[in-house]
Amino acid sequence: MPAVVRTELEVRWGECDPAGIVYHPAYLDWFSVARMRFLRANGISYMTSFHDEGIVVVVVGASCRYRKPLRAEDLAVVETWWRYVTRTRFGFSYRVYNGDGDLCAEGETEHAFVDERGKPINLARRAPGLWEKLRAIPVHGEQSSERPS
Amino acid sequence: MPAVVRTELEVRWGECDPAGIVYHPAYLDWFSVARMRFLRANGISYMTSFHDEGIVVVVVGASCRYRKPLRAEDLAVVETWWRYVTRTRFGFSYRVYNGDGDLCAEGETEHAFVDERGKPINLARRAPGLWEKLRAIPVHGEQSSERPS
Amino acid sequence: MPAVVRTELEVRWGECDPAGIVYHPAYLDWFSVARMRFLRANGISYMTSFHDEGIVVVVVGASCRYRKPLRAEDLAVVETWWRYVTRTRFGFSYRVYNGDGDLCAEGETEHAFVDERGKPINLARRAPGLWEKLRAIPVHGEQSSERPS
Amino acid sequence: MPAVVRTELEVRWGECDPAGIVYHPAYLDWFSVARMRFLRANGISYMTSFHDEGIVVVVVGASCRYRKPLRAEDLAVVETWWRYVTRTRFGFSYRVYNGDGDLCAEGETEHAFVDERGKPINLARRAPGLWEKLRAIPVHGEQSSERPS
Repeated sequence: MPAVVRTELEVRWGECDPAGIVYHPAYLDWFSVARMRFLRANGISYMTSFHDEGIVVVVVGASCRYRKPLRAEDLAVVETWWRYVTRTRFGFSYRVYNGDGDLCAEGETEHAFVDERGKPINLARRAPGLWEKLRAIPVHGEQSSERPS
Repeated sequence: MPAVVRTELEVRWGECDPAGIVYHPAYLDWFSVARMRFLRANGISYMTSFHDEGIVVVVVGASCRYRKPLRAEDLAVVETWWRYVTRTRFGFSYRVYNGDGDLCAEGETEHAFVDERGKPINLARRAPGLWEKLRAIPVHGEQSSERPS
Repeated sequence: MPAVVRTELEVRWGECDPAGIVYHPAYLDWFSVARMRFLRANGISYMTSFHDEGIVVVVVGASCRYRKPLRAEDLAVVETWWRYVTRTRFGFSYRVYNGDGDLCAEGETEHAFVDERGKPINLARRAPGLWEKLRAIPVHGEQSSERPS
Repeated sequence: MPAVVRTELEVRWGECDPAGIVYHPAYLDWFSVARMRFLRANGISYMTSFHDEGIVVVVVGASCRYRKPLRAEDLAVVETWWRYVTRTRFGFSYRVYNGDGDLCAEGETEHAFVDERGKPINLARRAPGLWEKLRAIPVHGEQSSERPS
């Protein structure tokens, strides 16, 4: 059960803008990829455990601070961990590094569990098996500005 | 019931790539926008008439020829018309012009009607009211290389 | 010189995800569209005044809070205003409303002026004419949670 | 010098649409990823050999036929090969398979070499070293409908 999951991506040409660098919304898309990998590395498929069960994990907040640009063909390493998990919400943190290990961006997202009409779900009641699996994943928690390890 | 529908878009920064021009898949996205506008201009909301009724209009083929690049803040005018419509499929043609009226791109898409499991639908049987509406839309047909008017 | 600029967008099918709602990074893309419109409504074309002059307006921070989902074909109205502008940076705020005037999302972005190698630029020195134009735009400032008007 | 290059991708949540399947323009984006991998597998970095040298490889045509849908978390394998290469153009073919080896899509793109103003380039004259490298890559050519191997 890894507390911090590493996702390696290669920057795509189509993710970059006329300034020649990654267009900033792409980082939120990478966080989404990294989130699915975090869950999968901890034994949970988002598609079969959440989506197919009618549990929608909506984003209620997202933020990103951009430190160093990346360009097409660059390696981007996204480190992902959990800040918290409750019966109704969870929150993730992310750091993006380039191939030299320089911090390029860091961000956070917060999510709520809702049903297909948008009504809040108590996960412990709606999907107790999934809730037990989630509870077993270590929470890395709030970070100082040092790199998690 | 317009046979040719004009959709005006302003090129977005995020639609452009490091070469400073519109990233080519964006044209297929514009065709999708233009298709919904074509249907709406003919009295049909895609979301309420197709999507909410469980009718999926899948793309089975798409092509685009690129003539002249566009860049951010440029005006893009997409002209859209129907090449054909049957009980199980329809096909669209598109031409993209810039603000000076120069032809920038032209493309085609083909679509099949399926249910949520991907099974083919006969629209005349499944949604006769919608089928009557579709039939009433004029088909502009195959074009010579001149501009439709 | 409007302090708050309204941008109307129609939600695109391709901006939505398998949950049937707008994929959350799309809001940052809308903010980018709205930012260009804000500048243009105040007499400045981003492409000719910044991009073509080698002035890159990099995003250093972005955040969004999501209140109410939107889906394809919905109207999205983005209201945009300036929180601050200095010789080296500016910051924007955004609110997104649906067609009923409900607040759907609110966000902020911060930007730095750099040259094509990423070196900070003092805009008053590098482009004094542009700087005068920017200074003349009213700054709406920090908002309470009420709607700007 | 591989004639056919395999690129493995995991379908992203953000690449899918409200029908729950990959939004069709995403395939053109995957072809772009696959093209860069094809060149790299043959010893050429697009960014350093083309982009940084002011050689723009513009897309002049693209097409895709969609056979079977993919959804988020699915494996997508893109096989890429060259149909032809000349001093002024090249053309690629692509096939996309799912994790079971089923053909999901097939497509083609055509590209022209131009300079930063859009003027055609003769690659043998402008970049003879790069041209020699390109010539050495085997051309797989037009395919029958069987799978290349």
